[in-house]
Amino acid sequence: MTRFALTIEWDGRPFMGWQHQKHGPSVQEAIEDAAHAITGEDVLVHAAGRTDTGVHALGMRAHCDIEKPIEPFRLMEALNARLRPNPVAVLACEVVPGDWHARFSCVARHYEYRIRMRRAPLTLEKGFAWRIAPPLDPHAMAAGAAMLVGRHDFTTFRSAHCQADSPLRTLDRLDVVAEGDLIRVFASARSFLHHQVRSMVGCLALVGQGRWSPEDVRAALAAKDRGALGLNAPPDGLYFVRADYPSDAASD
Amino acid sequence: MTRFALTIEWDGRPFMGWQHQKHGPSVQEAIEDAAHAITGEDVLVHAAGRTDTGVHALGMRAHCDIEKPIEPFRLMEALNARLRPNPVAVLACEVVPGDWHARFSCVARHYEYRIRMRRAPLTLEKGFAWRIAPPLDPHAMAAGAAMLVGRHDFTTFRSAHCQADSPLRTLDRLDVVAEGDLIRVFASARSFLHHQVRSMVGCLALVGQGRWSPEDVRAALAAKDRGALGLNAPPDGLYFVRADYPSDAASD
Repeated sequence: MTRFALTIEWDGRPFMGWQHQKHGPSVQEAIEDAAHAITGEDVLVHAAGRTDTGVHALGMRAHCDIEKPIEPFRLMEALNARLRPNPVAVLACEVVPGDWHARFSCVARHYEYRIRMRRAPLTLEKGFAWRIAPPLDPHAMAAGAAMLVGRHDFTTFRSAHCQADSPLRTLDRLDVVAEGDLIRVFASARSFLHHQVRSMVGCLALVGQGRWSPEDVRAALAAKDRGALGLNAPPDGLYFVRADYPSDAASD
Repeated sequence: MTRFALTIEWDGRPFMGWQHQKHGPSVQEAIEDAAHAITGEDVLVHAAGRTDTGVHALGMRAHCDIEKPIEPFRLMEALNARLRPNPVAVLACEVVPGDWHARFSCVARHYEYRIRMRRAPLTLEKGFAWRIAPPLDPHAMAAGAAMLVGRHDFTTFRSAHCQADSPLRTLDRLDVVAEGDLIRVFASARSFLHHQVRSMVGCLALVGQGRWSPEDVRAALAAKDRGALGLNAPPDGLYFVRADYPSDAASD
């Protein structure tokens, strides 16, 4: 039995998120089906995080155990061949110790959210960004974002379906970077609550539009009440960028 | 009668290029249908350049004449509303003099070609870039590109279907810029022959792979023979970026 760590990229549009769903395709199912076709084994794939319908990944980490002897490079190539035409690709594959766990060993998760500020509908970026008509003030958004960094009770920014035991999370980074009419929001934490990034970005958009002040973000956080949420951003603009592990530093 | 200049963006994947085709959808048809629905007139839309199946545009310029009195902003909004769900958007619309012609008044055309250097299949960028497995040497590609800049007979880099009177063209710019595993090729000229950019990029890819030397590019050009072409790049990575007009400087 060998444990493999995978780095995975996908276009979230055709999937009902990462996790198995009864009523539609999931990224997990696509990868497990491909692994089964290669090995004949019932392979379970565990990811660093579960993403929602329509959410993309640039570098999700996952692991699986395989009995059949196979080199990591060969496994990656075979998975990519079998994953076609699904828009899912394995970018890296390595052997890891049997106690390495994509979810439980993960010490930091990094997301990016992309807002395209313009009036016209999106074409090339349709499904890949949240379009908001200008004006949008990125400096006000950054001031609002600063209210959320640190250790807080994020109940306001948590989906009713969130299964986490505690609403306490430490948000290490929430940066707003404007590049022309693209506004990128970078969020980093050890872990996030369900819908937390989209909920935070939704409120930052209200701040950018001048409908909320940065202080309103602080008040929404302090309310610890989902009813205080201003707006939940759509999944289109959300990307799972990277997961960090203590072992990464040594192997890089 | 008012002449309107349009700036248009589209995702080329579902279209058989810009121009009307009997056997499939075209961008021109989509815009003309939208204009007809708004005005009741048979509107002809002329573009700065004709693009092939699968080629994208970030800022194509076009013009059309409309009898019905309508403000440019209203026309743009109505076109965008009617164009849905086609991945075509009008980014700008202005009134221009009756002798302004999107094709004949155009003094420079700018294209970008995107190559993604990696082994794994593309997911988020599928249809939006040409994937080539590494290694690819962008410095060698730049040296090959330098062979093509200037005024030359580009017969080697011209499709058999090209309708231009002359194979002589002046290539003002052919720059190769590497950004991580993305290689961007920027091409500028007053006008291009049919398939010229894709044909040039195809040969530069051979140089990047070490299968051609930069000198081979010069030899292919000197051959003035389509048979000397090494490779035609796929449409996926090609973007019409911008068209320039003498009037732009005054209005900007």
